[in-house]
Amino acid sequence: MVPNARGTAPGIFVEHQGKRIAMLPGPPHELIPMFEQAILPRLTAGSQAQTIVSRVLHLCGIGESDLETRVRDLIDAQGETTIAPLASLGEVKLRLTTKAGSQEAGLRRMVPVEEEIRRRLGRYVYGVDGDTLGHATAALLIGSGLTLGLAESCTGGMMAAELTGQPGISTVFLGGVVAYADATKSALLRVPRSMLRRHGAVSAEVCGAMARGIQARLGAHLGLAITGIAGPEGGTPTKPVGLVYIGLAASSPDEPLVQQHRFLGDRSMVRTRAVRQALVMLRESLLDRAGATSSQEPTS
Amino acid sequence: MVPNARGTAPGIFVEHQGKRIAMLPGPPHELIPMFEQAILPRLTAGSQAQTIVSRVLHLCGIGESDLETRVRDLIDAQGETTIAPLASLGEVKLRLTTKAGSQEAGLRRMVPVEEEIRRRLGRYVYGVDGDTLGHATAALLIGSGLTLGLAESCTGGMMAAELTGQPGISTVFLGGVVAYADATKSALLRVPRSMLRRHGAVSAEVCGAMARGIQARLGAHLGLAITGIAGPEGGTPTKPVGLVYIGLAASSPDEPLVQQHRFLGDRSMVRTRAVRQALVMLRESLLDRAGATSSQEPTS
Repeated sequence: MVPNARGTAPGIFVEHQGKRIAMLPGPPHELIPMFEQAILPRLTAGSQAQTIVSRVLHLCGIGESDLETRVRDLIDAQGETTIAPLASLGEVKLRLTTKAGSQEAGLRRMVPVEEEIRRRLGRYVYGVDGDTLGHATAALLIGSGLTLGLAESCTGGMMAAELTGQPGISTVFLGGVVAYADATKSALLRVPRSMLRRHGAVSAEVCGAMARGIQARLGAHLGLAITGIAGPEGGTPTKPVGLVYIGLAASSPDEPLVQQHRFLGDRSMVRTRAVRQALVMLRESLLDRAGATSSQEPTS
Repeated sequence: MVPNARGTAPGIFVEHQGKRIAMLPGPPHELIPMFEQAILPRLTAGSQAQTIVSRVLHLCGIGESDLETRVRDLIDAQGETTIAPLASLGEVKLRLTTKAGSQEAGLRRMVPVEEEIRRRLGRYVYGVDGDTLGHATAALLIGSGLTLGLAESCTGGMMAAELTGQPGISTVFLGGVVAYADATKSALLRVPRSMLRRHGAVSAEVCGAMARGIQARLGAHLGLAITGIAGPEGGTPTKPVGLVYIGLAASSPDEPLVQQHRFLGDRSMVRTRAVRQALVMLRESLLDRAGATSSQEPTS
């Protein structure tokens, strides 16, 4: 029996065929102290205590196979620090793992490996461990000082909800429009009705007009738009479920940039992937602008 | 050892001090067949097999203590079916549990208990088991045929994202505005600048004007608005973090209905609770309208 914080014993610890099995309650406020006080000492008792230390690098804007190719030699030559590429629902990660006498020693040992990865792929690394792309992109936007307006159709407010989860975003995020009905696209974003009739709501033309519309209406530096078919209904042979356009307009006479994507999966997956790709597009645009500014500095 | 679907054995099943402990892999596609094929027969072997059957009723718009008072006599008199009130983060549930020879027999036995609860509290019961308030309210809205526009400030698109998760919502949800900056509230929702200056963006007056603004701009039957202070910054002694106004305007000359709330918790919890309360307000309005219509029918 494993004592808990109150000295009673709801946990169980047994040995079975050379394996040790601990059964603990789920709620973190009970689990964590019990693990630290009762389980961890048993696991490390009498042995040269070794901690397994991991650090996860989160990447975006690069495919799994491209990533693997570019770090293949590091994986092949890996020593005390192992490198494992991981992928799930549009996310790409590299997990670094090592064993050391302590958490700090493990993290220290991994530094040169992480530095080499960042030297090769730094642009694609948006965060570590618990970081999310939404928070990282919101932080980048806040740092840029550029204002943003959003126009969402199929993602229905998910992109705005993601960005506004970040405290301090109100300094740069002016607002957005969830333009579900065609009439809303006209009324709030000034997308011409003739364009909607000719090209349909899910088209590169309308996506560009939505991005320009929200940028101009709010007087923002950047306007970002998403329109697509999330399903399960609404697909056609030429415009299937999963077809999504993402557009970005800047406060310049340049035409908005529009990407076309085909996302696989059900309604929820298509929406999640569309938001993720829109965050990637926004992030890359912010990085390009920062790069253009800083690379111009020496010559100015 | 417990065989998995491929006949090998990554699971462990041990007996310890009269307790049986099963260790199984986490991924559902491995866990579920292993549990059904290898664990369930061991648990039921040699005994008069009894299944524990549960059904959870989800309620909203009623407080935990009020709920408990109104079913106290049923709980006190409970027989083969037990009734347990559960509460978490603004959610209130009643879990019915019984033991029976099969899932079907258990569900059948619970029918009269559920009927009695619904007779007393039917208006507050929005779903069972895996149902969510967002999906239930979206379904109610679709059924009503009434169109809706949203104006969100502190919830930043979360309410729109919740409703648009439901397939078929595009027939009634026209769209929304995420009005983060004051200028956006003026530009897209036509909230007068003088009102924003006099009362502040987080006020009953501005909330009502946002609800009316989106209802009128989109020509919707209903306009719903949320404005508040989600934190961590932005609170003042008179307008603390957690203060949220929720307003509902209909396509009638009546003044919009505005509720004032104080939600506890961090940014994420305040936003989540505000969306939940807005869904409850929308739901109750839809139920009232449906009730008014049906109770008028006999006299017309």
